[in-house]
Amino acid sequence: MDTLHLSRHISSQFNEEIEQIRNHVMAMGGLVEQQLHHALQAIANSDTDKAQQVIDNDRKVNDWELTIDNECTRIIARRQPAASDLRLVMTILKTIADLERIGDETRRIAMVALESFNTEQQDLLVNLDNLGRHVWQMLHDVLDAYARMDVEAALTVYKEDKRVDREYEAITRQLMTYMIEDPRSIPKVMNVLWSARSLERIGDRCKNLSEYIIYLVKGKVVRHSDESELERNARS
Amino acid sequence: MDTLHLSRHISSQFNEEIEQIRNHVMAMGGLVEQQLHHALQAIANSDTDKAQQVIDNDRKVNDWELTIDNECTRIIARRQPAASDLRLVMTILKTIADLERIGDETRRIAMVALESFNTEQQDLLVNLDNLGRHVWQMLHDVLDAYARMDVEAALTVYKEDKRVDREYEAITRQLMTYMIEDPRSIPKVMNVLWSARSLERIGDRCKNLSEYIIYLVKGKVVRHSDESELERNARS
Repeated sequence: MDTLHLSRHISSQFNEEIEQIRNHVMAMGGLVEQQLHHALQAIANSDTDKAQQVIDNDRKVNDWELTIDNECTRIIARRQPAASDLRLVMTILKTIADLERIGDETRRIAMVALESFNTEQQDLLVNLDNLGRHVWQMLHDVLDAYARMDVEAALTVYKEDKRVDREYEAITRQLMTYMIEDPRSIPKVMNVLWSARSLERIGDRCKNLSEYIIYLVKGKVVRHSDESELERNARS
Repeated sequence: MDTLHLSRHISSQFNEEIEQIRNHVMAMGGLVEQQLHHALQAIANSDTDKAQQVIDNDRKVNDWELTIDNECTRIIARRQPAASDLRLVMTILKTIADLERIGDETRRIAMVALESFNTEQQDLLVNLDNLGRHVWQMLHDVLDAYARMDVEAALTVYKEDKRVDREYEAITRQLMTYMIEDPRSIPKVMNVLWSARSLERIGDRCKNLSEYIIYLVKGKVVRHSDESELERNARS
């Protein structure tokens, strides 16, 4: 990002402030990533304390969003940034909105874990574990790409979402078979299904984050465009 | 909104532009409301043409979001609005993001309808119909509150979300019972469940929209606050 925006600024005050906001976004991202990691650990180990901790810490994620939101509004009002700087600030606003939603989905996963997971479901949980690890890796990679403003890495995350979707669909089919074979398991399997759905949604959010990176670096809106169009724009 | 912001402006140019953006938000809202209405009709009547139409028209919703997003960025860059005007523009950005997500959920509902609904599920669909009507009413009311910047009406929508959540939980329980009694129905019931979930999420988004109205009128951030706190702020 440094080479993209910061070096061009006239106002060194803006530089300093935007750098601080950027650090806050990375801190928020780190917290969200940690939350997801802990939620997955809670599921894997039926760890109710850890699940409760994730639920409690969601407030911190929300606080970050409000803080950064305020900082963005303040920098716009005070520094009146021009086009490319403004684009950066606007994209930070979108980024934190997605991070906050990833936090929400993570809290949902922890709530399900707290209510209902037990050793009877070990077989089912193995599937969730793989999907979880996959999505967590996506989140890790997109935050890394964000820190370095790396378009190629963002593009890789963007494409990864399709694989996550397929994995999610496979789990859904498998869980349905499980329910058909043993209807008494339905309420418990449903909980696993909701968590799988939450993970799939987190994958979607990571895809959004990768779009923002491409937008910031390339200056082209790539949202709502199809994959080949996006790839062309990212590499042009 | 007129009495709140527009009369205070020095720049009549800003007035005109923000009024146009506001009109576009209302147009986007109207389209999203219509989309949900059509998706519910498609479910009720197993109308595949209508479902396909909803799916196709989601592109229009996305186009509106990009258009208004651009307009907001442009008005900030060109008019450099001060605090309360900037707050208005930032809140419009959040509003259209939620409207776009409501559009996404609506498209999902239409896709499920297209794939899988048939007369065998008439009993189940009646439940979805009630929940759908309830959520659609919420969307209608919050857009109406938005047009008039009516805090009391926004507060009513905000509270309504709890009732939608309870209705959704009741449907989930009922559908699970149905699956347990007739395991062959599971794949079809699952589709109804996903649509119920989408409707519940639309309710959440309407709640967000009502928070923005309260924020705009009262100037206090009410997101992430609990209901009594929000009510106190809204009425202070």
